[in-house]
Amino acid sequence: MNLPVPPDERRARATLSRTVEPGDEHAGRWLHRYGPTGFLDRLLRTAAASPPAPGGSADDDPFPGTGQKRVASWRLRAAAADPDRDLATIEDLGGRFLIPGDTEWPRQLDDLGDARPVGLWVRGPADLRTWALRSVALVGARACTPYGAHTASDLATGLARKGWVVVSGAAYGIDGAAHRGALAAGGATVAVLACGVDSPYPRGHDQLIRRISEQGLVVGELPPDTHPTPSRFILRNRVIAALTRGTVVIEAQHRSGSLVTARAAARLGRHTMGVPGPVTSTLSAGVHELLRGDATLVTDADEIVELIGDMGQLAPTRRGPVLPRDLLAPATAHVLEAVPAHGPTPTTVIARRAGTGPDDTLAKLYELHSLGFVQRHGDGWELTRPGTSASNARRGGT
Amino acid sequence: MNLPVPPDERRARATLSRTVEPGDEHAGRWLHRYGPTGFLDRLLRTAAASPPAPGGSADDDPFPGTGQKRVASWRLRAAAADPDRDLATIEDLGGRFLIPGDTEWPRQLDDLGDARPVGLWVRGPADLRTWALRSVALVGARACTPYGAHTASDLATGLARKGWVVVSGAAYGIDGAAHRGALAAGGATVAVLACGVDSPYPRGHDQLIRRISEQGLVVGELPPDTHPTPSRFILRNRVIAALTRGTVVIEAQHRSGSLVTARAAARLGRHTMGVPGPVTSTLSAGVHELLRGDATLVTDADEIVELIGDMGQLAPTRRGPVLPRDLLAPATAHVLEAVPAHGPTPTTVIARRAGTGPDDTLAKLYELHSLGFVQRHGDGWELTRPGTSASNARRGGT
Repeated sequence: MNLPVPPDERRARATLSRTVEPGDEHAGRWLHRYGPTGFLDRLLRTAAASPPAPGGSADDDPFPGTGQKRVASWRLRAAAADPDRDLATIEDLGGRFLIPGDTEWPRQLDDLGDARPVGLWVRGPADLRTWALRSVALVGARACTPYGAHTASDLATGLARKGWVVVSGAAYGIDGAAHRGALAAGGATVAVLACGVDSPYPRGHDQLIRRISEQGLVVGELPPDTHPTPSRFILRNRVIAALTRGTVVIEAQHRSGSLVTARAAARLGRHTMGVPGPVTSTLSAGVHELLRGDATLVTDADEIVELIGDMGQLAPTRRGPVLPRDLLAPATAHVLEAVPAHGPTPTTVIARRAGTGPDDTLAKLYELHSLGFVQRHGDGWELTRPGTSASNARRGGT
Repeated sequence: MNLPVPPDERRARATLSRTVEPGDEHAGRWLHRYGPTGFLDRLLRTAAASPPAPGGSADDDPFPGTGQKRVASWRLRAAAADPDRDLATIEDLGGRFLIPGDTEWPRQLDDLGDARPVGLWVRGPADLRTWALRSVALVGARACTPYGAHTASDLATGLARKGWVVVSGAAYGIDGAAHRGALAAGGATVAVLACGVDSPYPRGHDQLIRRISEQGLVVGELPPDTHPTPSRFILRNRVIAALTRGTVVIEAQHRSGSLVTARAAARLGRHTMGVPGPVTSTLSAGVHELLRGDATLVTDADEIVELIGDMGQLAPTRRGPVLPRDLLAPATAHVLEAVPAHGPTPTTVIARRAGTGPDDTLAKLYELHSLGFVQRHGDGWELTRPGTSASNARRGGT
């Protein structure tokens, strides 16, 4: 699937993924100008040379306009990087390192411009690109109320039942409740981490993150064995916002990180939504602030789907398949063949017919759903009938 | 104060107030065309005549386009009306019957067109017109939750402290909590009833309505000794909406009467606002429905005042007095003279200086506030200083 991209480009991006901090727009600019191998060569070639004198010509400075301290830190990290080891680590975990140009690369991330991730470290059986096409972010406070947790879980279950992928940050509180709600409905969920995908954080969500890596996807822009920092949490939020069609904030105090995600989503032209709560709750105050701006108030999964299902250019699946069937990856085509011609069929039955594991089957079914080949109906799946399903598909495929 | 209007016009409108149901636009049209005495004459003059044959000429029909049954019902009621007795009743209660043309008539009601009330029966010491200039409606469910009651009372207290008049319907639940919150803050409140102002409904709010008639205003378009009906409740809501600068719905189920008030407010160009609540509460579902439309989400009195304080044409008081001091009614001018030149002064002190009762003093202070002569500061009142108070006055005079 990743064949078109030259291996040295992937190695260069793996190195850069350990070299530059998430969202570094200086690095993004040079990466855009010189390409990953060119940027890295320029960085390492000049590493031995002494920094130019303040009065030196522009030719002496390989990255004019970018501070010397920043460049020095890139050099140190790039020199210490071991991309082959990192790529081997992710492969040992059954994962992959996605970069722009890969078929699975979610092109929505290109909207981030120079702040686009250098690459994404991914674990899990599904195709990130197709999943992201029908995904929505549920985010909110770590220290949420029982009301917030209940609502997050409820919305996630509702979205999963309608065939939507729930994206969140795997944190305690709202994030965890959202992932669990999706998993409980046998649905699809993506955790975007602010650390290496082999070093789940928080520790208390070890089990949850492992489960997501089996039934869904665990994604991050930081290389293996990297730990989160406050700025990495904040910058992770732009990936959640860019990956999804819209962001729903469930509980948030004033000045919360979830509001950063929502505002990033708005800047990227994604829908921003908020779930109201009591005005007496400080944990709803941030959401209400958002709702007094341009965000849309939503109270259930139907209202969310009604809003994001209408987003034309990101919704290529509205009227049936967008890909010819023979362009599907063989494993995906195999699951499609196992979907009976008539009547909704449970995932387990399709898995048995296909002879694939239930998590793998579910991942492929969500891909097929994103691509418009199948639709979810209650707890089962059925083939999309283009003539009759258009209005259903528009409402989210229920 | 009511001198410019001829007595026979007031008698005619008193008769019509007992003759036509609230909001009857047929009656409103004829009233507009013939005036109150002309409309009544035409009604009673043709009372003895038999109804015209279906094929009869238009000349035979005094009210072409208005159904015979409706006209017959008007005739019966008009013939039975005793306006002198009704006017004596309201006078005995210390009240008055206001009609268009009176100085105290709130001209905002003219926005109702043919559905404008024929007149308003009023009890209480304040001037309805000036109070209505700085008023906001708080409405909501009768069977509210403790959260709704708490919020209504809290908002009313906050609005009263900022010198705003709280208008509601005196019902159980949200209405009662709103009135009580305003009264508890020593503030101004208006109850708009769907029955005669001498026959308070509900019975359980006898004491509350009596207290409002002493410290605030009790208002209704139905004559003395009239009882509410479901349609009268609904039609009362248009008066609440028209009287105020904006309507805040605090708790409401789907299809609730409070939503009728809010939609009437929107149609009249008034601000509509809603207080969010848990999405798990059916009593917030109607409010959320409203907030998903054009209504503005509000969480405290500041946000309400920020919105309605900006409504230019209804806010003549933003930069100081709009009336020359010598045009004030003598009793009002008397209270103004009792406000000391420096420092905020409590109502009780001003009342003592003026030698008037505290309720009367408070009523006059709110009038003076609406007219821009004084402003509220914490629990006291002070003279408006045009140079320094403009930005305060814009925020509601706190």
